[in-house]
Amino acid sequence: MKLIKSLHQKKYRTQHGLFIVEGIKAVEEVLNSDFKVHKIFASTPIASNVLTDMVTLISARELAQMSSLTNPNGVLGVFHIPEPKKVVSSDWILVLDDVQDPGNMGTIIRLCDWFGIQHLVCSEHTVDCYNPKVLQATMGSITRVNIVYLDLAEFLQSVQLPIYGSFMSGTSISQTKLPEKGVLIMGNEGKGISGRIKEFCEHTIAIPQYGSKTAESLNVATATSILLNEIRRE
Amino acid sequence: MKLIKSLHQKKYRTQHGLFIVEGIKAVEEVLNSDFKVHKIFASTPIASNVLTDMVTLISARELAQMSSLTNPNGVLGVFHIPEPKKVVSSDWILVLDDVQDPGNMGTIIRLCDWFGIQHLVCSEHTVDCYNPKVLQATMGSITRVNIVYLDLAEFLQSVQLPIYGSFMSGTSISQTKLPEKGVLIMGNEGKGISGRIKEFCEHTIAIPQYGSKTAESLNVATATSILLNEIRRE
Repeated sequence: MKLIKSLHQKKYRTQHGLFIVEGIKAVEEVLNSDFKVHKIFASTPIASNVLTDMVTLISARELAQMSSLTNPNGVLGVFHIPEPKKVVSSDWILVLDDVQDPGNMGTIIRLCDWFGIQHLVCSEHTVDCYNPKVLQATMGSITRVNIVYLDLAEFLQSVQLPIYGSFMSGTSISQTKLPEKGVLIMGNEGKGISGRIKEFCEHTIAIPQYGSKTAESLNVATATSILLNEIRRE
Repeated sequence: MKLIKSLHQKKYRTQHGLFIVEGIKAVEEVLNSDFKVHKIFASTPIASNVLTDMVTLISARELAQMSSLTNPNGVLGVFHIPEPKKVVSSDWILVLDDVQDPGNMGTIIRLCDWFGIQHLVCSEHTVDCYNPKVLQATMGSITRVNIVYLDLAEFLQSVQLPIYGSFMSGTSISQTKLPEKGVLIMGNEGKGISGRIKEFCEHTIAIPQYGSKTAESLNVATATSILLNEIRRE
C-alpha cells in the first residue's frame, strides 16, 4: 500500500520502475499491450470477472487510499515502466522542450498515436509521462508511443534529419513545404523553445493568426495538433 | 457578496445578467473591451493602482469567499453579460452541438479569436460561456467573439451557407475543397453531432487517422483547431 501510494511521485516511480493506471478501460488497454503488469487491484468483483484471476480484491476504502483520483473508479493497475526503444529516423520525430502541463502532455501523446508518430523525444525537464494526470489524458495511447527522456542538445546534434522548431515568429506553415521526414520541436508553455535548443532549428514554422492581433497564443497541445496534421497532409 | 457568489451558477448569471472574471490580466482585458463593468474588487492596493479608482478594496478573506478559484488571485471583476449580436453569414460560422466540457469550450472560444471566426453559435445545452471554468480557459478571447445560444435546428434551417458536420466517418479533409464561407458543426464530446442536427449536414468531414486504428478519437477542441486551420489555409 505504501509502495503504491509512493508511485504518485516521480522519484519513487523511477526508483521502483513502476507506475499506476486507473480505471477499468485504461487498465485493460495497458494489459493488452507489451507493458508488463505488476499487480491489479479492484474494489468490486465485477471488475475482477473482466480482468480474470490476476485481480486482488480490496475494499473501496483501501483503493481510495492508493488512488490519485478524487473519485477513484474501482480498478487500479500497477505496471512496469518499459525500457525506451531506440529512436529511429525513418519518419517524423516529435520533440518536446520542457512541456510542463500534464494535460498538454497527455493530449500530445494521444496526438502521436492518432497521427502515427512513433517516437516522442522529451527534454529531461519535460513533465513525466507516467504522472497520473498525464495518464488520465492519454487514454491508453501511452502503450503505442515510444517516449524517451534525454539530453536534447546531444540528441539534436546526432540526428540525421531536418529540424523544424515551432515559433510565434516562424515562417507560416501554409508557405512551408514539409519534407517526408524530419524533427518537429515544440517548446515550453510559457517560454517556448529554449535558447540552447533554438540553435539547432534549421527551420522555424508558425501557425498563422487570422483573427485579432491581440489573441492569446495557441496552447502547445493545440499547436501540435495543427502541425502534426500538416505533416501528415497529402 | 451573496449576489456575487450566486454568479458561480448559470441560473443567477442569467437572472442578474452579470458574470465574474478573475485575475488581473483577464480583468484588464475585459475592461479594455466593449463589455460593461459592474464592480471590481481587489485584496491588495497594487492591483487597485493599475485599475485606477474603480476598484473596491476588500480583505483577502472576503475575496476568497466570492471567488470560484481554489487559489484566488487578488482581483475579481463583475461584468454585464452583453447582448449577443446578430449572426451574419459573411464568413465561416462555427456551431457547437452540446459541447459540455468547460475546458473545451474555453479553448474553442480562444481558437475562434485566433482564426478570426466572429460568430460562435451554440445549442441551448452547450456549456455556458460565462461559466468561471470556461473563462479561465478563454484568456480574454471572450470579448472578441460573438457567442450566441439558440435553437440550432431553427438556425440551420434559415442559414444561407453550405453546412459541414465533423464526423469520425466523414470525408477526409485532405480530400475536401472547403468553400470561402460556410457553417462548421462540432458535436458533443461523447455522442458527437445529434441525430436531429445531422440531417442538416450537407457535407461530412473527418480528420484522417494515420496511426494505430485503436487510437482514441481526437478531443473536440483539438479537432476544432485542425478544422479551423484547414478552413483558413490558403
